[in-house]
Amino acid sequence: MNNQSENALTDLVISRIKSENPRNQEILTKLVKHLHAFIKDVEPSEAEWFQAVDFLTRTGQKCDDKRQEFILFSDVLGVSMLVDAINHRSKSAITETTVKGPFHAAAQRYEAGENIARGSEAERGEATVVHGRVLAPDGNPVANATLDVWQSDDIGYYDVQDVNQPSMNLRGIFTTNAKGEFWFRTIKPAAYPVPTDGPVGELLRASGRHAMRPAHIHFWIKADGYHDIITHLFVEGDEYLESDAVFGVKDSLIIPFVKNSTPDQAAQWKVTAPFYEAHYDFTLAQKSK
Amino acid sequence: MNNQSENALTDLVISRIKSENPRNQEILTKLVKHLHAFIKDVEPSEAEWFQAVDFLTRTGQKCDDKRQEFILFSDVLGVSMLVDAINHRSKSAITETTVKGPFHAAAQRYEAGENIARGSEAERGEATVVHGRVLAPDGNPVANATLDVWQSDDIGYYDVQDVNQPSMNLRGIFTTNAKGEFWFRTIKPAAYPVPTDGPVGELLRASGRHAMRPAHIHFWIKADGYHDIITHLFVEGDEYLESDAVFGVKDSLIIPFVKNSTPDQAAQWKVTAPFYEAHYDFTLAQKSK
Repeated sequence: MNNQSENALTDLVISRIKSENPRNQEILTKLVKHLHAFIKDVEPSEAEWFQAVDFLTRTGQKCDDKRQEFILFSDVLGVSMLVDAINHRSKSAITETTVKGPFHAAAQRYEAGENIARGSEAERGEATVVHGRVLAPDGNPVANATLDVWQSDDIGYYDVQDVNQPSMNLRGIFTTNAKGEFWFRTIKPAAYPVPTDGPVGELLRASGRHAMRPAHIHFWIKADGYHDIITHLFVEGDEYLESDAVFGVKDSLIIPFVKNSTPDQAAQWKVTAPFYEAHYDFTLAQKSK
Repeated sequence: MNNQSENALTDLVISRIKSENPRNQEILTKLVKHLHAFIKDVEPSEAEWFQAVDFLTRTGQKCDDKRQEFILFSDVLGVSMLVDAINHRSKSAITETTVKGPFHAAAQRYEAGENIARGSEAERGEATVVHGRVLAPDGNPVANATLDVWQSDDIGYYDVQDVNQPSMNLRGIFTTNAKGEFWFRTIKPAAYPVPTDGPVGELLRASGRHAMRPAHIHFWIKADGYHDIITHLFVEGDEYLESDAVFGVKDSLIIPFVKNSTPDQAAQWKVTAPFYEAHYDFTLAQKSK
């Protein structure tokens, strides 16, 4: 029998899936179910179908070792944050997570307090001190936790996007002391657009959406016996906090970057006034033993 | 407010879509709705999500001027046939359509009866004559219709896949005469696997599915005043007719390739016995005036 109605076709495709792996069986079956439901709901013309094929093809071809356009596609459709939400449910005491984004790269280890802004001071932007602690759910400090941090410069570019920045600018790995404390010097990050020169840019324009992300610093925190946390800290007051192009903002991750013009306090942090000070305590979830 | 529950996140993403084009608005809204429904249904781990990103990336990167892995992805998931079904509803008198597939390429025009099998006769496979008519729904002949035909060789390869075949082997364009008739010489096509050296091959293996398509000849028929038809004719008796990897078979498109050992009849068709004879009359849908 090869005279399928549209619904019978969906059932036929699903009936062919015979995976030895139950999870594969589930995912592939649900993929066909939802993909066919989308097609039946939209009823694409053949030209629209081909436009979709072409879009997906160009999205794959835009990817290279410094650019992941399919992650960006997932990000701007809210899929990345949905996967994040599904994987971090009901852990109220724990620091909330958000998207990893496409700009993480290998970084060097720094001593506490070192400055991740490279290049001459005049070029760097507004001096900023970030400090806080890494804690267990019971409030006890987590020593020897590593904080892999990365951020944009003062005009919104990451080093991997920008040949004018020194290599490994504005990224580095810090370690907490016995009290769970960390601190580092940097510059205040800026809001920036996600890359719009590829298919995802076309998608945003077709959706009438802007491409901006509010200013933030990325953190990937690891400690023995605890689950990793991948998150951001957002700069309070940023104009894009309510309309992040990748839906990554959570209220608990917005913190003040407090302007401080006191020379004595600047000297304590090894910066010159005026500078910005940002404080945050991260709480990690313990792994079950 | 940036503390989305999983359902609120879907609504938030949809609320951001503000396209000036109503069809874009519809497609993008439904894309987010169904894609989020799929994610909520599957609840992927972060590793599974990244596996999907990697799969889609490699699918795009496998495409070039001779290979379209995303069309193949659409084909093996039954999406291409679903789009075909949606775009060709309730035209019972009209020849049924099926997938275009990835192997169409520019071809030369031939006179009626010419042989599209190139290379030495010994290399060619089993001689085959294909003949029939192109008709209007009322049964009247359609003169000057063009039939763009393409097919695999006797071991299942298309010229564009196979450096050992002459260029433009087994593809050509024919034109109907005043009686709507066409005929051409070729060889009997073979069943073959869709390409399995890319991500779609991984998908088929993960699904426990074979990659075979039953033997067929492709037709793309065009005539002034009529809608194009893209279809196949399948070889009756092929072992894969019930399990085509791309779900392209329709019963009305399966025809006998009749073996004929009569030298006189072979001479009429300018072949040598034994040969195969296949006959089909195509019916096109008239465009509304």
